[in-house]
Amino acid sequence: MKTLDEITQLITSELAKINWNKEPRGLYEPIGYVLSMGGKRIRPALSLMACNLFSENLQPAVLPALGIEVFHNFTLLHDDIMDRADVRRGRPTVHKKWNDNTAILSGDVMQISAYQLVAETPVEHLKPVLDLFSKTAAEICEGQQYDVDFEIRDEVNAEEYLEMIRLKTAVLLGCALKTGALIGGAGEEDAQNLYDFGINIGLAFQLKDDLLDVYGDEATFGKKIGGDILCNKKTYLLIHALQLAKGTDVIELKKWLNNCDQNQALEKIAAVTSIYNRLGVKSICEDKMHYFYSKAIANLANVRILENNKQELRNLAEKLMFRID
Amino acid sequence: MKTLDEITQLITSELAKINWNKEPRGLYEPIGYVLSMGGKRIRPALSLMACNLFSENLQPAVLPALGIEVFHNFTLLHDDIMDRADVRRGRPTVHKKWNDNTAILSGDVMQISAYQLVAETPVEHLKPVLDLFSKTAAEICEGQQYDVDFEIRDEVNAEEYLEMIRLKTAVLLGCALKTGALIGGAGEEDAQNLYDFGINIGLAFQLKDDLLDVYGDEATFGKKIGGDILCNKKTYLLIHALQLAKGTDVIELKKWLNNCDQNQALEKIAAVTSIYNRLGVKSICEDKMHYFYSKAIANLANVRILENNKQELRNLAEKLMFRID
Repeated sequence: MKTLDEITQLITSELAKINWNKEPRGLYEPIGYVLSMGGKRIRPALSLMACNLFSENLQPAVLPALGIEVFHNFTLLHDDIMDRADVRRGRPTVHKKWNDNTAILSGDVMQISAYQLVAETPVEHLKPVLDLFSKTAAEICEGQQYDVDFEIRDEVNAEEYLEMIRLKTAVLLGCALKTGALIGGAGEEDAQNLYDFGINIGLAFQLKDDLLDVYGDEATFGKKIGGDILCNKKTYLLIHALQLAKGTDVIELKKWLNNCDQNQALEKIAAVTSIYNRLGVKSICEDKMHYFYSKAIANLANVRILENNKQELRNLAEKLMFRID
Repeated sequence: MKTLDEITQLITSELAKINWNKEPRGLYEPIGYVLSMGGKRIRPALSLMACNLFSENLQPAVLPALGIEVFHNFTLLHDDIMDRADVRRGRPTVHKKWNDNTAILSGDVMQISAYQLVAETPVEHLKPVLDLFSKTAAEICEGQQYDVDFEIRDEVNAEEYLEMIRLKTAVLLGCALKTGALIGGAGEEDAQNLYDFGINIGLAFQLKDDLLDVYGDEATFGKKIGGDILCNKKTYLLIHALQLAKGTDVIELKKWLNNCDQNQALEKIAAVTSIYNRLGVKSICEDKMHYFYSKAIANLANVRILENNKQELRNLAEKLMFRID
């Protein structure tokens, strides 16, 4: 069994072997740029760790795992165009450094590159792995669309929100785990339990992210605190606050939602946070997060391999509850 | 053996069976819209005709053929954003009818849908068909990038131009034919001859398109005559004109290339056309077109099946020399 560090090193060195220094430069250079920005490579790590539960030979799972990482970075590239985000991981985004057309077309070929890597799955597993990958890829687009739709909708309920983050974030973790498991030789039931483990970890993580946006520490969170509040993002916290607020809280919350004055940003963050505190939505969100985390741990317990061999994956799950990229 | 009409009917009815009426509507509705715009479905027709050369059973080739058509329409969708084209086939383009973000994201999921259809290739042919499809898809992006690069480059030679149109247009015809042939049970050599047939037909067609832009009839061409001249597109005609022009022709040609005055559009088209006529670039282009067309016919002759059975494909090749979508 390899440790997470060993697996991350393997991913880093294998990813570096892919040649993006190809012609036409204008098409491939942005891909090299995006992938050089780093990130924790959590998805390919999950994939190889899942493979490692069933096989000592990780090699057949490496390229498909990199395909999942390339796909993830492709979604960030195209999402950044759609969100008009100028900075990612402290560096200018592709559409900012080059232009929108470059970001669109390089993204397109990046998606194809992801498929080419996934297609390196050993042929006996190719069809189920490919189908899972395509299903997941489509779901991620669906999640992104719901995220966009929710911005302009008046009301979004908690169930709809959880389904959106399942699609946008959780399914790729599940896909990474199941892909590695299948290539490692897992049976369908174990592979499915690992998929569900990924889904539940993903949901728990996203709720953690919602909490950190309000209650986190700017230095470790890596983003400005209150970003979700300032853009009125319908997070798990806001959805519940809108449901629970009564009397003056409703009036005040709605007043702040209609206030987009940049000069009152700090006041808005403080006011909305204090409404959240009064309504107790923090603990509602924490409870739900722990619910999904426990489900994930139960999914992992159901995988029929030695408990000892699951320790690295349990450690990673715990780490994930702090930050994911 | 099925006729082209029978094959086109089969494609139309099978394409209509795909359900794009899915949630979220904002993601899938534009795909249904794009595919409802029509088009001659030449790529899936080539694929099924190639299959039909080797097998009476077209069914296993239908979904992959539709995948190629969906992919083709995806490239049009994203190209239209990049080219800021407002109209396609007489109707508003997706980014115009909806917006850029919708066009980007629906395009992304359309590419995934194309892969899902190609993944329905019978498993014994899946790996080579999938690899060919991905290679082709990447090449089309490369062709698009070269096309963009050429716009801002001072000089492009004929060889570079032919390579660009091979990537941007011809390889998908080759891919469609080879995919159908492989699924139909063709050997590698016959499948490769059909691929090359597609490449050469594609190159001949694009040169025909360059000619029609200047010398065509607006009614049958379906586009305004002189469009390439007005946007200074480095077509096979212009590339040769720039190479051959001497003395006052050079001065006049460069003068018109620098003249973007909309009020002098008709004058520019007439002047550049008459320079083309003086330099004889029309026949240079026609000769090259016939050269590729003859090569295509020779490729088809090399396919080891009854000559009689190739007639429908020869007819389609001839039709293609008039128009393609």
